[in-house]
Order: sequence, then C-alpha cells, then structure tokens
Amino acid sequence: MVIVGAGFGGLAAARALADTPVDVLVLDARNHHTFQPLLYQVATAGLDADDVCYAVRGVFHRQRNARARLGRVTGLDRSRQRVLLSDGTEVGYDSLVLAVGAVTADFGVPGVTEHAFGLKSAADAIELRSHILRTFEAAEADAGNGSGEPTGALTMVVAGGGPTGVEMAGGLAELCDRVLRRDFPGLDIDRARVILVEATDHLLGGFSPRLSDKARRALEKLGVEVRLGTTVAEVEPDRVTLGDGTTIAARTMVWAAGVRAHPLGEALGFATERGRIVVDDRLRVPGHPEIFAIGDLAASPAPDGPLPQVAPVAVQGGRHAAAVIAAGLRGEEYGPFVYRDKGSMATVGRHAAIAQLPNGTTLSGIIGWVAWLVLHLVMLIGYRNRANVLVNWAWNYLTYDRGSRLLLDEALPNDALPKRG
Amino acid sequence: MVIVGAGFGGLAAARALADTPVDVLVLDARNHHTFQPLLYQVATAGLDADDVCYAVRGVFHRQRNARARLGRVTGLDRSRQRVLLSDGTEVGYDSLVLAVGAVTADFGVPGVTEHAFGLKSAADAIELRSHILRTFEAAEADAGNGSGEPTGALTMVVAGGGPTGVEMAGGLAELCDRVLRRDFPGLDIDRARVILVEATDHLLGGFSPRLSDKARRALEKLGVEVRLGTTVAEVEPDRVTLGDGTTIAARTMVWAAGVRAHPLGEALGFATERGRIVVDDRLRVPGHPEIFAIGDLAASPAPDGPLPQVAPVAVQGGRHAAAVIAAGLRGEEYGPFVYRDKGSMATVGRHAAIAQLPNGTTLSGIIGWVAWLVLHLVMLIGYRNRANVLVNWAWNYLTYDRGSRLLLDEALPNDALPKRG
Repeated sequence: MVIVGAGFGGLAAARALADTPVDVLVLDARNHHTFQPLLYQVATAGLDADDVCYAVRGVFHRQRNARARLGRVTGLDRSRQRVLLSDGTEVGYDSLVLAVGAVTADFGVPGVTEHAFGLKSAADAIELRSHILRTFEAAEADAGNGSGEPTGALTMVVAGGGPTGVEMAGGLAELCDRVLRRDFPGLDIDRARVILVEATDHLLGGFSPRLSDKARRALEKLGVEVRLGTTVAEVEPDRVTLGDGTTIAARTMVWAAGVRAHPLGEALGFATERGRIVVDDRLRVPGHPEIFAIGDLAASPAPDGPLPQVAPVAVQGGRHAAAVIAAGLRGEEYGPFVYRDKGSMATVGRHAAIAQLPNGTTLSGIIGWVAWLVLHLVMLIGYRNRANVLVNWAWNYLTYDRGSRLLLDEALPNDALPKRG
Repeated sequence: MVIVGAGFGGLAAARALADTPVDVLVLDARNHHTFQPLLYQVATAGLDADDVCYAVRGVFHRQRNARARLGRVTGLDRSRQRVLLSDGTEVGYDSLVLAVGAVTADFGVPGVTEHAFGLKSAADAIELRSHILRTFEAAEADAGNGSGEPTGALTMVVAGGGPTGVEMAGGLAELCDRVLRRDFPGLDIDRARVILVEATDHLLGGFSPRLSDKARRALEKLGVEVRLGTTVAEVEPDRVTLGDGTTIAARTMVWAAGVRAHPLGEALGFATERGRIVVDDRLRVPGHPEIFAIGDLAASPAPDGPLPQVAPVAVQGGRHAAAVIAAGLRGEEYGPFVYRDKGSMATVGRHAAIAQLPNGTTLSGIIGWVAWLVLHLVMLIGYRNRANVLVNWAWNYLTYDRGSRLLLDEALPNDALPKRG
C-alpha cells in the first residue's frame, strides 16, 4: 500500500500498520516530517530546523514493513491503481492513503502570496527568520548612516488570531524585547511594533471567551497590539492596508489567517468541499474503497460538518484508515470514524499558555504553559529532537536568548533594504 | 577601531580589547561566526548549522565596548581612514584589523569551481549534505525503476589529505555504512565508495609518519580507499579524472585540497605573498601602522616562512594585534608576534583520532578521540552550542544515527539526478 504525505496523518497510518501483513511505502515531496506546531519558534530563532524536522526514512528504520522515498505525486491512474510521480515514474498500490495536508491560503487578498510569509514548512520559517534579521540589520545601518531608519522597518503584522497567529505574535514580541534589543543597540527597539490582526471579535475562535481574553491580555502585556474585527485588504512590501482603509507601515507580514487543503485533492478530480476531498464515514473516497483521504486534505464527516484542520484529526484519521485497511485484509469490516476531541492549547509566551479540555477543564498561566511544553515535547518524533528542543528551551528560558538567529545566505543584499516574499 | 571578519582571529582580537578604552566594531559579510573545524559534521548530517554557528551580535551582548554589524568590505580609503562597504556606506577607523580568512582554492583544476563542493561555510556544508541525500534518493528511485542505478551515484571522492579531507572522508564512510545503509534499503550500500586522493605520499602532512600511517589505517578500516601520490586533473558532474589519466565515475566530489587567502587582501592593493597580506613582526601592514592583518589572510612572518593557515595562528594573531593597539593607546610599544604551536589534531571517526604535541607527545585511538571531542567542545562559542553538540554527539555515538539529514529545499528535482555545484 502507498501513503502520500509524511505529516501527522501519514505517519500515524504507517505506524498503525506496523504489525500487519502489508508493505507500506510512504511518499513525500520533502525528505522529512515537519512538526508544524513549533515552526513559529524556528521563525523566531528559538529552535533550528533540525529540532522540529525528522528524516522520514529514519522513522522506518525499525519498522520492517515500511519504507519511505522522496516523491511528488502529480496524478493517479485509478484503473491501473498506480500513483504518478513528477519524475515520470509510477508506483503501484492496492490501497492508497492521501495525506498531503494543507497549504497557506491567501483567500484572494492582493499581495499576500508575493509579500507575506507563510508558516507551513521549515523553509518558510527560515525565510521569515532571515527576512526579520536582514530587515533589522538594514534598519540599523540606515539609522547609523543618518539616512534614518526606514518607515515600518521595525513593524511586524501578523494576520490571523488562531493558535498560529497568537503564538507567532507572542514569539515576535519576545524576540524583539529580549534578543533584538540587545543585538541592535543602534536601534530604538521600544519603537518596534507587533500587530496581530483578527477578523472576528475574539482571538482563538475555538476557545472559551474567558481563555480568549486571557490570551489577549497576555499578548498585550508582551506589547502586542491586538486589533480585533479587522481584516487585511492588501499587502505591499512596505505597508499593509486594513479592511477599513487604514494603512500600517510594516516591512514584515506574517500570514497566519488560514490554510486550505493541498491542491492535489482538486487536481486528482475527486469531489471536494472547499478543496478537501469528500470521504465516507470510513474515510474512503466514494466509489473507490481502496483510496482513503485523511487529515487536512479530507472533509472528514462529523455531525457538525467537516472536522477542523488540526493535527489530532489527522493522527486519528491515519490510525482509522490503517484499521480499515487491516480489517479488510482479514475480510472484516471496521466501524465508522469518530473523532475524539482531546482539547486545544495555545501558548502566548513565557509562563503563559491556555488549554481547554472537552470536559470543560481549563488551564492557563504557568500551569498551562508547563502543560504546553510537556505535550509538545512528547509529540515530537525521536529522542534526539526532544533532547535538542529541551536544551534550547532551557537555554531560551534561562538566558532570555535565542540561539538560532542565523542568516545562512552568503550574499549581503546590495540594496539598503531586502526584498520580501 | 574596526575589525573586518568574525572568524577565530577577528573575535579573538575583539575580546582581547574588552577592557581597553577602545570602541570596537566588528564587520562580517555573514551575521554569524562559523566554527569551521566541525563543518564536515554538518555536511555528514551529524550536526546542524546552528550547532556550529553563533550570531556575531550575540558574542558582544556582554562586551560593552564592542558592536557587530553585517557588512561586506569592498575597499579602503586609507587617507581618510575609512572602510568602504558594498552597500555604499563607509565606516571610519583609527585602527583596523583585517581578518577575513581564507576561501576554497581550485588551484586552476578544471571543473572544481563548477562541480566540486568546498567546505568553508555553513551554506557550503548544507549544500553538500543536500547533494548527497538527493543523489542517493535519485539512485534508489532509478534502481527501483529498473533503469538501474546511475554510474558513480554512490561514489564520493575527497581531494586533499589534510585534516579536513581526512575528517570528511571518515565522516562520509561512517554516514554511508551506518545511516544511509538503513535509510536506503533499495540500494546496495556495500557498493558505495569513498575515495581520498592526496597528492603527496602521506596523509596529514604536519604529523609524524607514524601518526599519518595510523590515520590511513583507521580510514581504510572504515572502508575509505586512500590514494596517495595522486592528483586530481579534472572534475566533471559524473566523473573525476586523476593526474595519471585514469577516471573515477563519481557524482560527489569534495574539494579539501586547499585554501587561499580571501581575495580582499589583493583587492586592497597591499603587498601580498600568494594572496596573503605581507605584515611586519607586529602584524602591521608596512607603511600603515594603523592597519593589521592576521590569520589566514596574513603572511605572518616566522623563521621558517609564513605561518600555516590554521585557527591557532589566527587566534594568537588577533590577541597580538589587540595588544599592540592597546599598548599604542598607552604610548607604549608591544613586542613582536611569536607563534606558539600547541600541536595538531585530526579525527578519522568513532574512537579514532590523532594528536601531536610540540614536545613530541602523541595521542591516538580512543584517547586521542576523547581529547579531540573535549577540545572541540571547549573551543565552541557559547554554552548552548556546546550543549547541543554534546546532545547530538551522544545521540550519534549511542545510536549510530545522524539526525540532521534534511533536504530543506521544497522542490524536488525534475531530472532523475540533480545538478551539482
């Protein structure tokens, strides 16, 4: 069988098939699994890419029935049951799990694709980190020249008040206040601004109003300007225009306002719902009992409409698809997919996180923060990544420093300010 | 005063001026110090870039009289005592330390610049790591297709039997045998070859013949083919031609056969010796008592000709230049530079390293290896980097794994085999 995508869902499916008489091949266009919940810490220089990424081939060193290879899927030959890859080769399957996840969606807002930074891959995170460091370097050089610091050089706008946007805004505020302040003595870092823009009237939609308020207050304590009920209308290299027509001079724009299913779903010609492949209650594509779609890519059915595009849905979906496949081999039927919501978490920064469990229990403040740290450490793949993250977190916590603020590109920009996007 | 270059020499000079009444500005075209002795471990996926790099601005958080900024020096205005930068700005100096080090030298061998990989920066190391991983991915895909594994896909040639070449060859052999063997079950890794080519008749020129022989035997035990008395005549994407006309089919070529002084020395118009700026016994440029050149960039005088281009010469030169400058401020003269050779080390791999001290003492085997590990840990900048390297070394040692084998580029190559260089 073939699994396309080595994210949370794809890996969960592969692992769940470990003790079954199935040969598993995992294809991914990248050679590593990316632990997306911590990418914002890579972007803000607290962790490095290899702390949050794990070679897919390494995942299967000890699983004898599974292999991985690099491969970008471009199509399916459904009658011959073959996956078509971008290098012109094909891979046969008897069952197929599609788990390629989601990509950043600009929702048609002009300039987002060209000038804003997404946060779905390690490359995205490193690009954003490099952009911030370059922009601050150029601003200090200009300030020192007497030509004056460029407008908006120290202003960062984050669009989207979900967990990614909240964590990103908190991370940027801490980066400015604790690290860039000491790194750039030639800049007046008190003038640096982090602005979080959210279209609805509260942050963290899925959380209770009380927790959402706590998160907002924690962000504001870090100096983040939270603008609720505000949309982004246009992004330009040096400014952001809001829905009400006001503009903010800003040279860094992080787009955390949403994702959409990977375009592969539509490209394959299956029925989709907002880009997500429609599946039955066993996560099978209707008419193709041998093809499954899970996680962000699938419109997994639930009583209140399709399930949210979050990691636990992908993990549980992957395990369910594996169970259906394994049961099928034994000539059995496996029951329908029922998602078990285990709650949600988001962190704002040092000593501040919120968590909401399905039974109504909530955590916040330092207890929520410790719970967040422990959960994320446990969810990482591999003891080496966990140890590295633990070392870096301890370092960041004790020293208020961020060790990974590296610009790895060799060449300096020739312009005073770097281009974006 | 201004220091150009944040390598071993430039940082040593800046730190030695910590308690002097001098304002120090450190310029570097990269924003980080690179611990070059461990770059080969980044290239072989044992460490990641941020383990061996350290933000230059961070070095000076606690040194009140020093600052750093990004800047590529393009020239000097000696009469006005100003450094000219690539972005068109200028920086004034009263004294100037030039410490930009060395770059990879192809010595005119055709194809080296285009097709071989150097190892002077983190970007170099990551590029080489990506190339090896991509080449093995493509080879496995082709082997699986039935089109057969491309000629030379699993062959890596390292040119240069100095410490960098020896460590690189050992690292590649261990990477193949212990990691890629498990990563690529579709390839016959016993057919992978690592060939170390050295022009003279022994490895590690500076070491005693006995230690040099030990290193060669340790490499051969790892499966490295050592070819002494052999030069490289030409490098092409899929083969290497040796001086005697024989060719080796190889898709990976690491060029560790030599470095030359950074071209800045010649560009500034100072008298040079093989690209290295000629300096007097105080490391000053003749005729310019306010300008110093140190380390790999300088032809630091010694009884037996210019000193070697190694880190200890740079560190001691940086400290000496600082002492001369500090003495000058007090109206005093400081003595001539005398290099103290503290010995040399090189590691071949697990439990195998050699060290030679000036008093004739030698270390080898596991004792040499432990000494090598401890010394390199101590020489790293910052406790965070040391902790990260220690975690990764412990991981690599205990599991025979290498955690950082990431291909961070998003796009897959469309050709069966990636382009090189």
